[in-house]
Amino acid sequence: MKLLVFAASHRPESFNRKLAAAAANYIRSKSVDVDFAEYAEFDMPLFKDNHEKPEATFTFAKRASAADGIIISSPEYNWSYPGSLKNIIDWTSRINPNPIKAKTVLLMSASTGARGGILGIDHLKTPFEALQTHLFNRVFPLGNCQQAFDENNTLIPKQRDMLHSILDDYVTFTGKLSNI
Amino acid sequence: MKLLVFAASHRPESFNRKLAAAAANYIRSKSVDVDFAEYAEFDMPLFKDNHEKPEATFTFAKRASAADGIIISSPEYNWSYPGSLKNIIDWTSRINPNPIKAKTVLLMSASTGARGGILGIDHLKTPFEALQTHLFNRVFPLGNCQQAFDENNTLIPKQRDMLHSILDDYVTFTGKLSNI
Amino acid sequence: MKLLVFAASHRPESFNRKLAAAAANYIRSKSVDVDFAEYAEFDMPLFKDNHEKPEATFTFAKRASAADGIIISSPEYNWSYPGSLKNIIDWTSRINPNPIKAKTVLLMSASTGARGGILGIDHLKTPFEALQTHLFNRVFPLGNCQQAFDENNTLIPKQRDMLHSILDDYVTFTGKLSNI
Amino acid sequence: MKLLVFAASHRPESFNRKLAAAAANYIRSKSVDVDFAEYAEFDMPLFKDNHEKPEATFTFAKRASAADGIIISSPEYNWSYPGSLKNIIDWTSRINPNPIKAKTVLLMSASTGARGGILGIDHLKTPFEALQTHLFNRVFPLGNCQQAFDENNTLIPKQRDMLHSILDDYVTFTGKLSNI
Repeated sequence: MKLLVFAASHRPESFNRKLAAAAANYIRSKSVDVDFAEYAEFDMPLFKDNHEKPEATFTFAKRASAADGIIISSPEYNWSYPGSLKNIIDWTSRINPNPIKAKTVLLMSASTGARGGILGIDHLKTPFEALQTHLFNRVFPLGNCQQAFDENNTLIPKQRDMLHSILDDYVTFTGKLSNI
Repeated sequence: MKLLVFAASHRPESFNRKLAAAAANYIRSKSVDVDFAEYAEFDMPLFKDNHEKPEATFTFAKRASAADGIIISSPEYNWSYPGSLKNIIDWTSRINPNPIKAKTVLLMSASTGARGGILGIDHLKTPFEALQTHLFNRVFPLGNCQQAFDENNTLIPKQRDMLHSILDDYVTFTGKLSNI
Repeated sequence: MKLLVFAASHRPESFNRKLAAAAANYIRSKSVDVDFAEYAEFDMPLFKDNHEKPEATFTFAKRASAADGIIISSPEYNWSYPGSLKNIIDWTSRINPNPIKAKTVLLMSASTGARGGILGIDHLKTPFEALQTHLFNRVFPLGNCQQAFDENNTLIPKQRDMLHSILDDYVTFTGKLSNI
Repeated sequence: MKLLVFAASHRPESFNRKLAAAAANYIRSKSVDVDFAEYAEFDMPLFKDNHEKPEATFTFAKRASAADGIIISSPEYNWSYPGSLKNIIDWTSRINPNPIKAKTVLLMSASTGARGGILGIDHLKTPFEALQTHLFNRVFPLGNCQQAFDENNTLIPKQRDMLHSILDDYVTFTGKLSNI
């Protein structure tokens, strides 16, 4: 099994990147193949439906297509998902056949606020439904994230155990669905 | 009263642009001042929270700020709003004070499908709520839009009457709220 | 001006009822007429579209109709609004003319969780949009509500100031819109 | 494999009941065991969190629990799901352990409008996510449903083929996930 993992944030010190890295490390330890991407690798100009697809569209499509599932840790902006992340989805949706159809998707969000980015996660589900991915039945909204990592960027035990439990189940879920 | 009107589409022959133009023409005929913008005027690079705001952010902010309300006709992509439109909102939200706070907002959508882009409209409300605009209590989802305009790009009577009724009420709504 | 205020909970000790009561007390002190309802007054059997409207439908409709706006404090159940509250809306929507059209609506939610019921609030907006109410541009999601009231059921200062600021603006908003 | 199938409507001539029946007939023909329920079997008084669970809560829980997946055809009321359907979910969520955890769910909606109840479907997903069901990656919103059935209550070919394709994939999906 192979999983594509990335954070929808450009800052190196981003909490979402730390969360994505924590997830990647754990599933690697379970002998799952991980393709960890930097968000900048998927930078695309604004979608314009009368323009040609930029190269990064195919970069994203190939890496997503080569994986059985996609784990995204995304910040919430203005009670919804980042425009830049939807921009990736908008370009990708113009590739035929749909490169992410039937891939599993696990959504996470780190936020310094109490809500853990739950509204961003809720909105982000819909375009992934439109593209017929299999959304995992649990999500990981990490609130007050500035208190959730220790000085080694390791999640504190309570949050870590929750994350590992979700990842274990997500890997099982992806294994079951990887051929349909 | 002044209203900023634009379509969230780059194509000149876009049905959303036709719908935005139809709305602009009608409210102009009611002696409302209209600032009609081309979407390209608001093109911004992808939002990165460690980068400086691009010039177009201030262009949008100034024009929105000078208006009492904003009318947007937006396509629906992948059951939600365009990433490029949210990108404008994400940059704008970093301006202090919030330039669109308490502006009224009317959302429209033209779609060749039967649903008229209602899911895109539904999602788009949320970031505008986050930025404390006053969303008008009616929306205009125009389905099967390829059959809704005649050869002069004029809306057919049934749709036109509905649009005019919504615009009349929206202008009244904006007039009531323009000072709070 | 008159406002209908209620909590969508049947328990006398409900935090949502305490929050609704706190809102009612404050706006009364601002010389606004308050109609405070107990949720049980709006108990209706399950909506069945081939049955006659129950008496409580008309009770709700009359009281909502006599008010300029409606303040609801609703718990979140299963990441959305309570079925019983939507049941009231479903029955009400069969009354012609629509008794809540153009009323203003302020949504609040008390929750012992960190998110303050924000998903319930987000979902609840949509049926009120369908019925063409004017949703106020701010909401009041009160998280960790068990720590937000003192022994006299008074909100602690930080939360109280936020609530009062929202209510002041909501009353102004309702005043502006009360005749359209 | 066994599937629980029902329509969230009380009317015998309901289009949603016809759609649920069409789905049940097709999957029966594929040798899947079907438990077809009438909506009235799940009638419950309004959820009150200080009351005892009504008998129908356990009826629903047992039948859902005995199935591998649940197919629901639900009308859209006021741009969201019926209050009565959420009322079932609200009561069910108080049973421990959660009787619908990890069940698959397929959502359908019949509507005389053009949108096919897509907003109701979109809202209905969220409480099923909260209860950790596996939502299938396709939905079936049937617009203009009064034209979609012939005089034998059989779906017209175009709609029927789409439904059968979705059901085939849903049965495969449920088969893969039935043990996790």
